[in-house]
Amino acid sequence: MIIDCHGHYTTAPKALEAWRNQQIAGIQDPVMMPKVADLKISDDELIESIQSNQLRLMTERGLDLTLFSPRASFMAHHIGDFQVSSTWAAICNELCYRVSQLFPDNFVPVAMLPQSPGVDPATCIPELEKCVTQYGNVGLNLNPDPSGGHWTSPPLTDRAWYPIYEKMVEFDIPAMIHVSTSCNACFHTTGAHYINADTTAVMQLIQGDLFKDFPSLRFVIPHGGGAAPYHWGRYRGLAQELKKPVLADHLLNNIYFDTCVYHQPGIDLLNRVIPVKNVLFGSEMIGAVRGIDPETGNYFDDTKRYIESCPALNADDRYQIYEGNARRVYPRLDATLKARAAK
Amino acid sequence: MIIDCHGHYTTAPKALEAWRNQQIAGIQDPVMMPKVADLKISDDELIESIQSNQLRLMTERGLDLTLFSPRASFMAHHIGDFQVSSTWAAICNELCYRVSQLFPDNFVPVAMLPQSPGVDPATCIPELEKCVTQYGNVGLNLNPDPSGGHWTSPPLTDRAWYPIYEKMVEFDIPAMIHVSTSCNACFHTTGAHYINADTTAVMQLIQGDLFKDFPSLRFVIPHGGGAAPYHWGRYRGLAQELKKPVLADHLLNNIYFDTCVYHQPGIDLLNRVIPVKNVLFGSEMIGAVRGIDPETGNYFDDTKRYIESCPALNADDRYQIYEGNARRVYPRLDATLKARAAK
Repeated sequence: MIIDCHGHYTTAPKALEAWRNQQIAGIQDPVMMPKVADLKISDDELIESIQSNQLRLMTERGLDLTLFSPRASFMAHHIGDFQVSSTWAAICNELCYRVSQLFPDNFVPVAMLPQSPGVDPATCIPELEKCVTQYGNVGLNLNPDPSGGHWTSPPLTDRAWYPIYEKMVEFDIPAMIHVSTSCNACFHTTGAHYINADTTAVMQLIQGDLFKDFPSLRFVIPHGGGAAPYHWGRYRGLAQELKKPVLADHLLNNIYFDTCVYHQPGIDLLNRVIPVKNVLFGSEMIGAVRGIDPETGNYFDDTKRYIESCPALNADDRYQIYEGNARRVYPRLDATLKARAAK
Repeated sequence: MIIDCHGHYTTAPKALEAWRNQQIAGIQDPVMMPKVADLKISDDELIESIQSNQLRLMTERGLDLTLFSPRASFMAHHIGDFQVSSTWAAICNELCYRVSQLFPDNFVPVAMLPQSPGVDPATCIPELEKCVTQYGNVGLNLNPDPSGGHWTSPPLTDRAWYPIYEKMVEFDIPAMIHVSTSCNACFHTTGAHYINADTTAVMQLIQGDLFKDFPSLRFVIPHGGGAAPYHWGRYRGLAQELKKPVLADHLLNNIYFDTCVYHQPGIDLLNRVIPVKNVLFGSEMIGAVRGIDPETGNYFDDTKRYIESCPALNADDRYQIYEGNARRVYPRLDATLKARAAK
């Protein structure tokens, strides 16, 4: 089967965005603040939003299952305080859960956290626990910069993040390191902030020794690892200057790169540089780049085509990238799939 | 000949750093502030610092000429005010000028600017004029983030930067877009901030229409363009979503990527994706990554080896990357070389 480790609910019914806008208005004027119960989205609306979008394209492209989390750019952790983020995260996570119940063969949920700038990450744990134990989430998205492009949180190797990591280890779930909307005019959200965050995370992990403290902790670095694979020589060299172990030992037992790289040369580079065991199929469809590449006639984000055409990969490699690695990195996904198969 | 478009004076005599530390102390306590005349570095010291370092390695590697600018991480525009930056830039630029006079066949100077966060970029013009008209500088380094990792300046497409661009057009000189030290704990200077800045600059240029206003303006994006070539499909797709022209027209008449990518797969990707006319040889030697790659036995930053081994390039391509493109992008370099050859 083909598992897409990186999908967001970017096509939720418009009522969701309207409710969020109301909530944002309510930050300034409490009279405007909507109740959670004010948001009404029917199952039919959810079904329609998925069938005509993600599921249609998954079927066209031959993808079986998507790890499905709330829309990344809508997390917008910089808006409001913890209570605002907490209410918003609960709503978004519930919608992904409902999608996973409506389409159990095709969508498995991944949680967003109610992060808020300057707030202890440990405050996110109750939402995470609910998502894993009640909603069947198999992973989470962790935002290394809840400020939205001002980078006011400590690096991912800082002990401030450890409560999240302890819970991840306890649940045996990985985190995708994924920022949200940039509110810094220098950084285009999907063209600069997303990619920079990936690169930044890799370098933070090189500088630190996080996986000594958490040997079983696992991170997925999205968008093909930002700039890291392209500059792998630089990173190997910097690790050497910093007297760290070689990256194969220092990072590659714990970090994984998705295949959200939207052209053949990029995917070929990724698979030339990064071992197969560290590559997870992903497309982030429907996401930042929705158009058709005039050079190929195919969707930019139809990343399966690039994997199929990548000369460095054989059939077993492709199995690992499409399915095997995801089952290993997301053990709760594997358990879910095995339980279903046994029925 | 082989022209390295990206070299910094990272090996200046220790007296320079001592003077700078004194200057930084003087920001808090004016009694400590040193005079420019307090810095004494002899020609012999300059010669020694170059002969035993850059020139030795250039000879070993077969490089003829380096475009030589003050140490990027020492620019540290975030320190002090405009006056502090102005004095510091003048000192650093004069040292590179002296090196170029001592080794005229091997080093041609490129200017740093006395940028300071929140200060009008136009204040940098007198230093730039001096460097070009008196010191023979053929280009400049422009820091898109003088705050050092807080990104408080407007994007490069903002009109605030236009006075610099007008002067660049008048002098027909290109700018390398190069940040300095990060004082944001999230960003390792050479592993995250440098690469992120490159990526950020490319995306800013995609979002804007700067080259409509300045059709002859030229930028060199260092470090192989950050993440941009690896994610070229993403950037082509985002330009399409933004209703911009194709990148070949929107960017590639005005921006160039150096070859500071420290492994063979990265250089191969760069030259597979980016047209030869847009690639300039560079190594940033002696820079961030000074070690020997245990996988090859050669220096990570010996980028000529990767160009030599790149299967996509033929002899004429290599001539363009080593020399032809640099002469075109830096017309004052070409004029300098032609004037010398005519003697």
